[in-house]
Amino acid sequence: MTYSSKVDLEARKRALGKLRECFGELVKKILAGTPPVLEIRKRTLANTLYDPDKKMLILGNEVLHRSFLNAGEAKKFMQTVLMASIIYEALKNNEYPTIRDLYYRGKHTIRYRKLPSGRIKEENTWDEQQESDAVIRDIEVLIDMLREEMLILSKEKGKVVGRMRIKSGDDIIDLSKMGHGAYAIEPTPDFIEFIDVDAEFVLVIEKDAVFQQLHRAGFWKKYKAILVTSAGQPDRATRRFVRRLNEELGLPVYILTDADPYGWYIYSVFKVGSINLSYESERLATPNSKFLGVSMVDIFGSKSLRKRPYLSEAERRNFIIKATERDLKRAKELMSYTWFQTRRWKLELKTFLDKKAKLEIEALTSKGLKFLMDKYLPEKIQAGDWID
Amino acid sequence: MTYSSKVDLEARKRALGKLRECFGELVKKILAGTPPVLEIRKRTLANTLYDPDKKMLILGNEVLHRSFLNAGEAKKFMQTVLMASIIYEALKNNEYPTIRDLYYRGKHTIRYRKLPSGRIKEENTWDEQQESDAVIRDIEVLIDMLREEMLILSKEKGKVVGRMRIKSGDDIIDLSKMGHGAYAIEPTPDFIEFIDVDAEFVLVIEKDAVFQQLHRAGFWKKYKAILVTSAGQPDRATRRFVRRLNEELGLPVYILTDADPYGWYIYSVFKVGSINLSYESERLATPNSKFLGVSMVDIFGSKSLRKRPYLSEAERRNFIIKATERDLKRAKELMSYTWFQTRRWKLELKTFLDKKAKLEIEALTSKGLKFLMDKYLPEKIQAGDWID
Repeated sequence: MTYSSKVDLEARKRALGKLRECFGELVKKILAGTPPVLEIRKRTLANTLYDPDKKMLILGNEVLHRSFLNAGEAKKFMQTVLMASIIYEALKNNEYPTIRDLYYRGKHTIRYRKLPSGRIKEENTWDEQQESDAVIRDIEVLIDMLREEMLILSKEKGKVVGRMRIKSGDDIIDLSKMGHGAYAIEPTPDFIEFIDVDAEFVLVIEKDAVFQQLHRAGFWKKYKAILVTSAGQPDRATRRFVRRLNEELGLPVYILTDADPYGWYIYSVFKVGSINLSYESERLATPNSKFLGVSMVDIFGSKSLRKRPYLSEAERRNFIIKATERDLKRAKELMSYTWFQTRRWKLELKTFLDKKAKLEIEALTSKGLKFLMDKYLPEKIQAGDWID
Repeated sequence: MTYSSKVDLEARKRALGKLRECFGELVKKILAGTPPVLEIRKRTLANTLYDPDKKMLILGNEVLHRSFLNAGEAKKFMQTVLMASIIYEALKNNEYPTIRDLYYRGKHTIRYRKLPSGRIKEENTWDEQQESDAVIRDIEVLIDMLREEMLILSKEKGKVVGRMRIKSGDDIIDLSKMGHGAYAIEPTPDFIEFIDVDAEFVLVIEKDAVFQQLHRAGFWKKYKAILVTSAGQPDRATRRFVRRLNEELGLPVYILTDADPYGWYIYSVFKVGSINLSYESERLATPNSKFLGVSMVDIFGSKSLRKRPYLSEAERRNFIIKATERDLKRAKELMSYTWFQTRRWKLELKTFLDKKAKLEIEALTSKGLKFLMDKYLPEKIQAGDWID
């Protein structure tokens, strides 16, 4: 008897088929006497492009070759085939591996005789998880399937509550009936089915504690919203879930983070994807998402934009945290990204570098949760006071 | 209109009453012309005792005095009264502050005239959150109420799925109908009502990714369990939730962590409480919880216990991670704790120090999820093969 959901059983079949198809080609070549070669799109920074139409990072067309008969490529070739076979076995055996246990599953020492001396040599399949993770990514690119679709699981921090019902596994879940708790998003959000939705927008909050406050005070009920938290840097599942809310349900997505380079980077990962993992962006990024705040203009106001600040002089004195050298360095890096080259983002980053000041969302809730819930957030959303 | 649950509205009344009662006394004293003094049980390490009957860390009876008219105690006195008044206001205004925003709410500079020179002096209420957090803890001890009962929220990592239904807020939630996701435990688990339960034990897993695997494979369905993950070091809410499952429902609690000092400390925090915060332990610790694994004996076997290891020689070679200097130091510290002074724990720690070897749970899942799910876990639970 299996306890897996129908969704998972179907996903297994799909992934097995895809792996068989791709690596079956390889087997055919070998049987036909052709030297086996894998051709994979390069995941290098040089092959990572910002697509201004799609408004996200994508992988370019450069490919690399891994030939079994090339001494410099043979190890990588073998690692790829080894990992593919481990994933294939796991799929067949109804397993749900993680990238950590895939690392362990493949980790062993190969002993072989080195010609012509005849001496026994040893080589490890891989030593660090970084190596096996890179191989998994190559397979994702190769077969054009995210690891989640191969039922590879991972830890997951994202949570959601709000006015919608979903189907996950064999269950229908009402996200408006979670009490004081929340629904922890599954690691494979592509398998979620949206049943019905009665919300007007999605608010994504960097900080779990602020999510708890707004949830508890009924923000999503009052303003017809879906409330999501990434609990810090977003993981893949949270990003994919948010993207689907935007793309498939047409819900606007607003992102609320601390006013600091760390918060801006969280926004950036949601919006255009992660620089190191651009091949995922086409599935995970939400290019339509908006940065709602907290912005430097919210803190200091702006004459050119004719905006008054949300904080008084005294509040600024009590709440502002001095930026560190690291923060300033990070902000300068952000300035070089294409998608921060807009007039509005330039003003934001310049103000940060001038004032050397950052602010946490909690400084706003300390003005009263009502201020955040019934003034700051609805006012900004209504006025379209966000940064794109 | 309020969007708060009934549970919260009642909790507010209770907390307001308690604060009024306690600080009302103080006001009476002041009005009667008595110098105001706060008497609070000391939260020092020296006043933290291991109670062998209760099997947990508790706070001793030593008290400290904070007198307003003592120059050395006046600042702490004022901080305590300031924080109490901020919490009181928040409760009255239907707010849900976090410890971080309580810090911001109280943070300001007091300007006063220093006699006899008449010069203006400045002093901050507090500079770092550590200071305001300590004041909140004092208030918890003083009024004998956990901060959660005062509706002070915090971020929360714990998740649960399994064969039970609970009431949280105004909703009834079926924890066996979470699909591939999970229920994220609320920050105030004392407000949860247990509706019905059809489980035989609770398995608490350190690692979220392993929780995901076992959940997805249906472990809790097959073995009639409640599955909890602390996602690393457990927070207060997860600990309180687990304690209530044990105490109120009589469910045995088994804890599964990595085989390393970090994992053992997680078990220790669940079982006896955190050393720095012993005043909470009486509410948060689960002294009946058992360490199910991964144990050193699981890895290496034991002649004296007549136990064979779960790992082969080859698996040990591939899976074991060398302990760091920091790990060894930490293990020596653990050896000094009273509750690790049992024959079985001494064997565990001694083996670790001898072998200098640690192991992750993922090494077990890499032997196949079936091995973990259908052999290791049920076999150990059935045989009572745990450490107390």
